[in-house]
Amino acid sequence: MTRRQSITMMAAAAAPSAIEKFVRFQNGARISWGRVDGEQVIPLSNAPYLGGKPLGGKKQLKNITLLAPADPPKVLAVGLNYKSHIGTRTVPKEPEIFYKPTTCLIAPGEPIVIPAGAKNVHYEGELVLVMATGGRNLTIEQAKAAIFGVTCGNDVSERDWQNGPQKDLQWWRAKGSDTFGPLGPMLVKGAAYDKALLQTRLNKEVVQKQFTSDLLFDCPTIVSYISKYVTLAPGDVIYTGTPGSTKRMVAGDSVEVEIEGIGLLRNPIKAS
Amino acid sequence: MTRRQSITMMAAAAAPSAIEKFVRFQNGARISWGRVDGEQVIPLSNAPYLGGKPLGGKKQLKNITLLAPADPPKVLAVGLNYKSHIGTRTVPKEPEIFYKPTTCLIAPGEPIVIPAGAKNVHYEGELVLVMATGGRNLTIEQAKAAIFGVTCGNDVSERDWQNGPQKDLQWWRAKGSDTFGPLGPMLVKGAAYDKALLQTRLNKEVVQKQFTSDLLFDCPTIVSYISKYVTLAPGDVIYTGTPGSTKRMVAGDSVEVEIEGIGLLRNPIKAS
Repeated sequence: MTRRQSITMMAAAAAPSAIEKFVRFQNGARISWGRVDGEQVIPLSNAPYLGGKPLGGKKQLKNITLLAPADPPKVLAVGLNYKSHIGTRTVPKEPEIFYKPTTCLIAPGEPIVIPAGAKNVHYEGELVLVMATGGRNLTIEQAKAAIFGVTCGNDVSERDWQNGPQKDLQWWRAKGSDTFGPLGPMLVKGAAYDKALLQTRLNKEVVQKQFTSDLLFDCPTIVSYISKYVTLAPGDVIYTGTPGSTKRMVAGDSVEVEIEGIGLLRNPIKAS
Repeated sequence: MTRRQSITMMAAAAAPSAIEKFVRFQNGARISWGRVDGEQVIPLSNAPYLGGKPLGGKKQLKNITLLAPADPPKVLAVGLNYKSHIGTRTVPKEPEIFYKPTTCLIAPGEPIVIPAGAKNVHYEGELVLVMATGGRNLTIEQAKAAIFGVTCGNDVSERDWQNGPQKDLQWWRAKGSDTFGPLGPMLVKGAAYDKALLQTRLNKEVVQKQFTSDLLFDCPTIVSYISKYVTLAPGDVIYTGTPGSTKRMVAGDSVEVEIEGIGLLRNPIKAS
């Protein structure tokens, strides 16, 4: 074996853990998926988590309009999953799960719209999982393998409806109102998302900053736990929880969630 | 105009409010919709709420395997919507909404499976809406017109996880575990569902009995309220709340939800 052959083989062996980035975008009248290759995007025949294969005709990344990089059957989320966010509340014994409706998902750059009557809308910068495979009763190992990749998310929350003076019985509108689920910009496979720095910035000021390694329940544990009760499906989205404290956002603000090696999700805030 | 022509025209004019019944069923390897015509089923090209048209080849109703009569993008539900169910709790000022995941829906006759660790699983017999059109900020009149039809549902609930010793932060598994959403048997259009008698029977004993006219928030009000915050879509399913009190079900039980003029939904209870 020549040295060159040896290097080629090592590269091939390393390929499964190489980082790959995918985008979902408006392609004329259609919605397409693409694999990012430098400044270019190679369109795919389907979502990457559904086995999409490369098609012909590259696009320039800068020329396409990104959409949320998932089109999930359902969206789940975890509450109270960083010690720094729990404050005086009891540390949960199991992950505390809730649903966000798929209708709340929005793209990078798309405005978060303050609903009529809402007075206390906060950001929550989060690492978000997108599932490759689904199923029930996944072991921790199966759960780890079932995660396709990750992206950045903002679990936008109206605190008065969640826990305040207008508290609802459940968080349906507190965390489920239209535009309360920014997601993106890219779906990233193969990244070390379990020890990445997450930062949220409100109008460029850093307002949340923590490593994802500080999650109380790590990603495979969350997935395994959910699957004890609810069947997961390819493409399902899971927001994993927010660190630290949060602040109110108002119309005119701009919020960014950045995760090292994963991407930067920016959304403006708009009045309804 | 002859008398015969006149009668024909009157029948045609009355047609939009005539009762129509639809089923969703396993048709070999495919899932089909059909319109019920006496003992026969006329297959449709799509869901009736998506404009499905009759196809050739009738089926015998008794020979088909029914599925839940909706394939919704999302499932919403209302809590505390009958005075008889509220007891000593505060009467809500607005409908109290929550989500059930689409994965919890099951067919008539399909077993409700008690999840591992669950000790207190109750029935909740309910009138269920299926949307024809969606949208945001629907007026009461628009909301009424946007309801395609209704069916029977069971909002199965694990009380210990909902409000008891193992209370979760949200109702995700209390009301969202797999099989916790029985639905059917038929999707009924044109029925007077706003004043129908709803009865739940556990092992043939009547355990809930109330008219849907006793709903605190009626169906158009629920739909209009949801649409102030969350975009509704054709096919979306809304459980409207349960009357009276509920009891625990155990493996071997059989639960029936019957709504006068709408249908009878029966499901056995099974251990996991």
